[in-house]
Amino acid sequence: MKEAARRNLRIDGQRLMGRIEALGRIGALAGGGVCRLALTDEDRQGRDLVVGWMRELGLDVAVDRLGNVMGVRPGREEGPPVIMGSHIDTVATGGLYDGALGVLAGLEVVNLLNDSDIETKRPVAVAFFTNEEGSRFHPDMMGSAVHQGLLDAEEVLATVGLDGAVLADDLARIGYAGEAPVGNMRAHAYVELHIEQGPVLDKEGVTIGAVTGVQGIFWTEYVIRGVDNHAGTTPMSDRHDAGHVAARLAVEARLAAMEAGPGQMATVGRMELRPGLTNVVPGEAVIRTDLRNIDGEGLAATQERLIAFLHEAAAKEGCTAEWRPLARFAPTPFDAGLVDLIERSAQDLGHSVKRMPSGAGHDAQMFASNCPTAMIFVPSKDGISHNTNEYTSPEDIEAGGNVLLRVLLETAE
Amino acid sequence: MKEAARRNLRIDGQRLMGRIEALGRIGALAGGGVCRLALTDEDRQGRDLVVGWMRELGLDVAVDRLGNVMGVRPGREEGPPVIMGSHIDTVATGGLYDGALGVLAGLEVVNLLNDSDIETKRPVAVAFFTNEEGSRFHPDMMGSAVHQGLLDAEEVLATVGLDGAVLADDLARIGYAGEAPVGNMRAHAYVELHIEQGPVLDKEGVTIGAVTGVQGIFWTEYVIRGVDNHAGTTPMSDRHDAGHVAARLAVEARLAAMEAGPGQMATVGRMELRPGLTNVVPGEAVIRTDLRNIDGEGLAATQERLIAFLHEAAAKEGCTAEWRPLARFAPTPFDAGLVDLIERSAQDLGHSVKRMPSGAGHDAQMFASNCPTAMIFVPSKDGISHNTNEYTSPEDIEAGGNVLLRVLLETAE
Repeated sequence: MKEAARRNLRIDGQRLMGRIEALGRIGALAGGGVCRLALTDEDRQGRDLVVGWMRELGLDVAVDRLGNVMGVRPGREEGPPVIMGSHIDTVATGGLYDGALGVLAGLEVVNLLNDSDIETKRPVAVAFFTNEEGSRFHPDMMGSAVHQGLLDAEEVLATVGLDGAVLADDLARIGYAGEAPVGNMRAHAYVELHIEQGPVLDKEGVTIGAVTGVQGIFWTEYVIRGVDNHAGTTPMSDRHDAGHVAARLAVEARLAAMEAGPGQMATVGRMELRPGLTNVVPGEAVIRTDLRNIDGEGLAATQERLIAFLHEAAAKEGCTAEWRPLARFAPTPFDAGLVDLIERSAQDLGHSVKRMPSGAGHDAQMFASNCPTAMIFVPSKDGISHNTNEYTSPEDIEAGGNVLLRVLLETAE
Repeated sequence: MKEAARRNLRIDGQRLMGRIEALGRIGALAGGGVCRLALTDEDRQGRDLVVGWMRELGLDVAVDRLGNVMGVRPGREEGPPVIMGSHIDTVATGGLYDGALGVLAGLEVVNLLNDSDIETKRPVAVAFFTNEEGSRFHPDMMGSAVHQGLLDAEEVLATVGLDGAVLADDLARIGYAGEAPVGNMRAHAYVELHIEQGPVLDKEGVTIGAVTGVQGIFWTEYVIRGVDNHAGTTPMSDRHDAGHVAARLAVEARLAAMEAGPGQMATVGRMELRPGLTNVVPGEAVIRTDLRNIDGEGLAATQERLIAFLHEAAAKEGCTAEWRPLARFAPTPFDAGLVDLIERSAQDLGHSVKRMPSGAGHDAQMFASNCPTAMIFVPSKDGISHNTNEYTSPEDIEAGGNVLLRVLLETAE
């Protein structure tokens, strides 16, 4: 097919919505949304459905030892494929789009290639990775992490979940303890279509996000120790109030983010005062910060600012303070050429497009150090995700699918 | 006995310590301290021991419908007694002195009067009141509150405790559902010796506190509602972070107390962020303040300042905020004449003495509106109370007992 004809190709938006809705009926919750926690029966049913579609579309399907599933469409030449991937497991009160969109849009692209008798130079694959959400088993994105050699398969298979289940056993239980070896596969490129899970595109009325990379994430826990005391009899000047230090740190985290500029996120999601009684000055406080930035230096500087503040505030209150890192993920920039291609493709299709970082983690970040990788965002209504009210319009879904198609066609040649 | 001879009377410090230690063996905890929660078997054993001593000392003992126990020593004339009272129930990890000191010092005063063949003009009584600590049944100080007509006996008897027990049933179970009517008894005066439960006397090296009154106490709960959001994808300027508002309020509470002056206490003992996940902007926060001041106007002004701040901070963050009072106790001033007498008595005995408010609630505050009432404090080592390490030296205990004796002798004439 000539180049001009390829430029006129469009996915079948209704067909894509049909598959999204069909998958959305598996693990459906009364009142809307889905629950397909990794490696539960609902996850198995979802997997079976998608694998069935892969086979109907003539893909060569393999399941690896971590239960990652890839269906490959051969190209004119052999070699590493261009992968369109994401995940189909969900959080406990999830929506129809988070993860599923990227996988099913990939299938729709394959479907269109088949319909149009198009042979690509390189193989093309559609993949979904095990346990992206990390709801039952930690960490999240373990399937893609093992797939790309960032985590060890044996260690991950031995993971014990929150409910006491062993990952390897659950994988076998649902029939997805695959044979294919895992960890060494290198793709030619990896492209993931995903909902934004934030409010930016929706608020700004922009259709496509050309994702520049994934923010680095620092999770830190701080423990402040003072002295429990009677709320009525302890003079204010005699207090060693760990809760007061924690509250000051929380306020400083917000200030640090505002002063660092729009790329810096700071969240205090969790704070506990102990003993937690109304009339007892708290002698212990535990507080956690979640800091994110696409700029690694800015991220580190913000963390250092908070640690310095912690020590100063604790000393002033006559308390001790300790901190420990719970997670340290460096920013993951995506491939500049692919990001340009996404932006250009959106513009050529007549869609508004904006470069932006991803605030959430994705399977794509596991590929970024191994091959050219990028993501395409479409809007989330009101920024809502991880919530049964998660919504992206069929028009935006179709727009994203068409950008994915263009990017795939160019990358696979 | 002549006035001069009376001035030479001293209590038997060793005998008083002996009774304190004997009562301290009931409900004793391995490693020190006691647990005699109200209306448990340990409380019963403690009550039986003290009632036995009352009878040995020839007091006419009555148990009322709320299980309050009073032993009366007749005077030359009939009429309302001067009561020396406190409580013998404890918190779960209590010490030997909180409450017990006032009751057993009262018994020691009676013992001395008996030994010295002294007849007082007015009757003299020693009393202990049910459930001063409020550990299993709320509210605290219920026994003395009903005794002095501030709470209704039937309502209090119907109280269901934290563990589901009904107060009236537990009272009957331990054999202290008394016959004597309760609520109408008016004393000639009420004097309570108690440990300070704070660090002031110990730190300043002063032996006796002439307590001017009990601080007013305002407990308030604030609920702030914003929007749960993703910590990575939600721009800082788009957040409705209930936890941030709560943290600001906590910092403001400290500032308000410092700016109001040394009489104002402010404590944030309890703060909860929901959902309480590291990577979720908290859409709900619950925070409680404990404000205290001997000055009622200052107390109210501080509370108003915090409520105004709450509304302003919530509005700035695009959150809603509600508050509700959990407790509102006006300051309780003690009788000026009695406070003077305590101060004079301490000085005449050669003890250092300081006027000071009480930061903790006591049975005495229930009497203050009905008859001349005051309290005598002795030091708590390092200010520690409600803790198995609670300690007051035998020398300080004896000093307090001698001040109580003098105050009793003068008031009962």
